Amino acid sequence: MTVTPADLPAGFLDDLFALLAIPSVAAWRAEGDAMERAADWLRARLSRAGLSARLLEGSAGAPPYVYAEGPQVPGRPTLLVYGHYDVQPAKQADGWSSDPFVPVLREGRIYARGATDQKMNLLLPVVALEGLDPAELGCNLKVFFEGEEEILSPHLADTLSRYRDLLACDFCISSDGWQAGPAEGDLRLGLRGFCGVELTLFGATKDLHSGTFGGAAPNPAIALARLLAGLWGEDGRVALPGFYDGIPPLTAAERDTAAADFDETAWRARAGLRQDRPLAVTGADIPLHTGLLPALEIHALEAGNYAGGLRTVIPERASARLSCRLVPGQEPLRIREALANWLRRHLPAGIDMELTPLPGTARPYRIAADHPGQRLAADVLTGVDGQPPRFTYSGGAIPLPGEIEAQLGIKTVVFGFGLPDENMHAADEFCRLSDIRRGLAAWKVLLCRRVELMG
Amino acid sequence: MTVTPADLPAGFLDDLFALLAIPSVAAWRAEGDAMERAADWLRARLSRAGLSARLLEGSAGAPPYVYAEGPQVPGRPTLLVYGHYDVQPAKQADGWSSDPFVPVLREGRIYARGATDQKMNLLLPVVALEGLDPAELGCNLKVFFEGEEEILSPHLADTLSRYRDLLACDFCISSDGWQAGPAEGDLRLGLRGFCGVELTLFGATKDLHSGTFGGAAPNPAIALARLLAGLWGEDGRVALPGFYDGIPPLTAAERDTAAADFDETAWRARAGLRQDRPLAVTGADIPLHTGLLPALEIHALEAGNYAGGLRTVIPERASARLSCRLVPGQEPLRIREALANWLRRHLPAGIDMELTPLPGTARPYRIAADHPGQRLAADVLTGVDGQPPRFTYSGGAIPLPGEIEAQLGIKTVVFGFGLPDENMHAADEFCRLSDIRRGLAAWKVLLCRRVELMG
Repeated sequence: MTVTPADLPAGFLDDLFALLAIPSVAAWRAEGDAMERAADWLRARLSRAGLSARLLEGSAGAPPYVYAEGPQVPGRPTLLVYGHYDVQPAKQADGWSSDPFVPVLREGRIYARGATDQKMNLLLPVVALEGLDPAELGCNLKVFFEGEEEILSPHLADTLSRYRDLLACDFCISSDGWQAGPAEGDLRLGLRGFCGVELTLFGATKDLHSGTFGGAAPNPAIALARLLAGLWGEDGRVALPGFYDGIPPLTAAERDTAAADFDETAWRARAGLRQDRPLAVTGADIPLHTGLLPALEIHALEAGNYAGGLRTVIPERASARLSCRLVPGQEPLRIREALANWLRRHLPAGIDMELTPLPGTARPYRIAADHPGQRLAADVLTGVDGQPPRFTYSGGAIPLPGEIEAQLGIKTVVFGFGLPDENMHAADEFCRLSDIRRGLAAWKVLLCRRVELMG
Repeated sequence: MTVTPADLPAGFLDDLFALLAIPSVAAWRAEGDAMERAADWLRARLSRAGLSARLLEGSAGAPPYVYAEGPQVPGRPTLLVYGHYDVQPAKQADGWSSDPFVPVLREGRIYARGATDQKMNLLLPVVALEGLDPAELGCNLKVFFEGEEEILSPHLADTLSRYRDLLACDFCISSDGWQAGPAEGDLRLGLRGFCGVELTLFGATKDLHSGTFGGAAPNPAIALARLLAGLWGEDGRVALPGFYDGIPPLTAAERDTAAADFDETAWRARAGLRQDRPLAVTGADIPLHTGLLPALEIHALEAGNYAGGLRTVIPERASARLSCRLVPGQEPLRIREALANWLRRHLPAGIDMELTPLPGTARPYRIAADHPGQRLAADVLTGVDGQPPRFTYSGGAIPLPGEIEAQLGIKTVVFGFGLPDENMHAADEFCRLSDIRRGLAAWKVLLCRRVELMG
C-alpha cells in the first residue's frame, strides 16, 4: 500500500525538509555555522513539541549538544532518546542526481543527505510525542542529540561525564538504526568499537629521481608497504601483539545468532562480489567476521602521484589511514596505543613518521536479547509489523551506547527506521514515506508503554 | 667570466627558443601535434646546416624519428649522433616561475622545459658543424633523434632493427648527458637498465563500509601492502626469485671507481636527507647501490581517496607503480616477466589484479674508460676544461646505448653538457649560456678529430 504525504502528520515533511536543507556535516565544521543552525533548529522544534529544550556546551570545538526534557513525573522510568544531527559529507559531483542539501520528494522517497541517517529518525519521537496525551506516556522523556557521530564523537566522553546528572535515566534508546525489511525490525545485540590512526612516512625532502638515487635513498612507499604488511599474519589474522587479548571466546549462542539466516549469495550481491569468486572468508564465517570478531582495515594509501601518470621517482612521502573494528574485551584507547607503538617500533632506518590518531573512538557494545529494553522494543515492533524483529550483531560503530554504559551504567536499545538499501553514506541517500509512517506508529506505541526496567 | 648572448653564434638563441617553445612532451602525445612539429623543425634545421635530413617513420604510434647525414667520405669513420627532442611533462602550476614552454633568459640562464634535458644539447653538434670547414671534419656524420626517451623509448628497438643499414656507423655519441662541474666533464662508464609494471588490485565493485563488511570482504589495500612487501627481504635486498641471477660480482676496479671521491655529505644535501639521519645504506655503499647494483623502487601508491579525508571504507581498488633499475646480466624483459609472474602467483584469495608493463625498457650498459670513443671524448674535454673528466657509473637509464649495442654491436659515448643543478625533470629547468659556449667548443674539437676506432 502506497504511502502519500497526506498519510503523515501535517507539517512533518516541511520540518524534515527544513532540517535536511541545513548541511550539518561535522567534517565541514570549519566552513560555516551549519552545525549551530541545525542544533538551534532542533532546539526550537523540541520546544514547539512542549519539551523544555536547550543547547549544551561541549568541550572546545564540539558542535552544540541539544538537550530537552518533558515533565519528570515521579514513579515513571526515565527514557533518554539519543540521536545525531550531523551527516556524512556530500557533494552533487560525487554522483548525486540532485543537490544533496536541496531535499526532493520523488515517488514516495525523499532524497537528501541525512534523509535516512538520520534526520528522519530524529523527528520520529518528537512528532510521535505531539500526537499523544501526556497522561498516556509510560515514561519520562529526555532527549540528547549530538553533532559528531559521523566523525565518531570525539567530544562525547567528555560531555557525558560533564552532564551525567542531567542525563541520568533508566535506559536509553538510540534512534540511529535501521530495519531488516519493510515489515521486519532489526534490534542490535552488539556494535563493534572503533579506533584508528593515520600515518605519513617521510624519506627525502623532495621526490628523487629513482635512477640517480634508487637503491640507496630511503623509499617511504616501500617502507609503508613493508610496515603495514607486518600487521597481518600469513593466516590473515591481525598480527599486532595483544590485539586479541581479553576477547572472550565466542559462545555457541553468539555464533548461532550471528549465522542465523545468513545468506551468502545476498551478501555477495550487496558487497558487489562475484558469486563465483574465491574468498578468504566464506559461508557462516562471514557474519562472525563482520559482527563478532575484530578487524583491522586499510582505508586509504597515497604515495607519489599515481593518477598523474608515470614519474620514475622515489616519492618524498607515503601515507595510510587504517582503523580497527573492536569487540568486547578490546579497549579502543589501549588498542590504538598498541598500534601506534608497534608502528613506531617497526619503522625502518632512514624513514621518519608522523602518526596521528583518527579523531573519535567507540567502545564495543553488547546488549542481550532479553534485556527489558530489548523486550519492550521487540514487543512494539512485533505489534507494528505482525512478525518479531531480528536480533543482529552490527559490525559498525555508534560511540554512544558503549560510552554511556561505561559512564552511567545504562544500556541502550538501537531502535531506528529506514531500510538498508537507502544509500546511507553514499550518493542519492533517501528515506521512504513508508519508513516514516512505520516509525511514527512504532514510537507512539513505545512512548505509551511502561516497562519495569529494573526487572 | 660571464657569458653573454653576444658570445654565442648568431641565431643560436633564436633557434633554441623556437625549439623550446614546442611542448614536445611524449607523455602528452595524444593531445596534439607538438611531436610532429618539433621533429619537422629539427629536420629543417639540420637541412639548413647542410645535412641531408628527413623523418623516419617509426612503428605504429611512435613520434617521428629525425635522421640526417653529411657527405659520407670513404676512409673516414662514421659517427652517429643521438639525441631526443621529447621532454618531461611540465605545467606552470607544478611550481614554475613562468610558463615552461615560453622560454626566458634571466641572468645568463634560459628557463624552459627541455632547456638542459636536452634541446640545448641537440643543437650543439649541429651549430658546431656549421662553423667548420667540411674538409676539417674527422668523421662522417649521421644524426638520429628520437621523440620518446622520456617515456623510455618503447618503439626504439623496432626502429633500430628496421633502419639498421641506414644507421650503420663506427661509434655513437649520445648528446644526452651532463657535466660534473663548470669545468669538469663527466663520461659514463655505465647506465642502469629499466623495466617496470603497474598493477591495480580489485576487491568489491564499490567502496564498502568497513564496519558492515570489515573482516570478511577482501581489502585490496591490505592485499597490495602485503603483496608488495614480499618483494623485499628483511635485509632490504630484492626477494624476487632470480632477480640477481647472472649479475657478475663487482670487481675491485668497479668498486674503486664508483666510490672515488664520493662525498656522502654532498650526496645527502643533494637528496634532501638530514646529515644526522640514520640510513640503511651509507658511505661508500651509496655509489655502489645507486650505480653498480640493481634496485626495485615503488614510485606511487593509491587506494581510497587519502586527500579527501577520513572515509571508513574498504576501498574498491588499490594501485601501485614500480620499476627496476638493472645492471649487466639482467635482461629487462626477463625481469619484467619474472616480476609480473611473481605478483600473479602471490595474489591473495578474493583479489583480482590488472597488471600492465610500464611502456619502455632499457638494457643496462657498460663502456670501458679505455674504449677509443671514451679516450677521444676524454681528450677533447681535457683540452676544453684544462683537467680530465670524471668517469662515473650512472644509475639512470638511456635506452639507446644498450639497444644499439645489442642490435648493431656499437658502443655509445655519453657526451652532454649542462650542470647537475639545472632542475632536470623538475620545475624551473634551465641551462646556462656558459654550458652552451663550452659545449660548442667541445663539439667543434671533437668533430675535427679523427679516431682510429677499431684500434
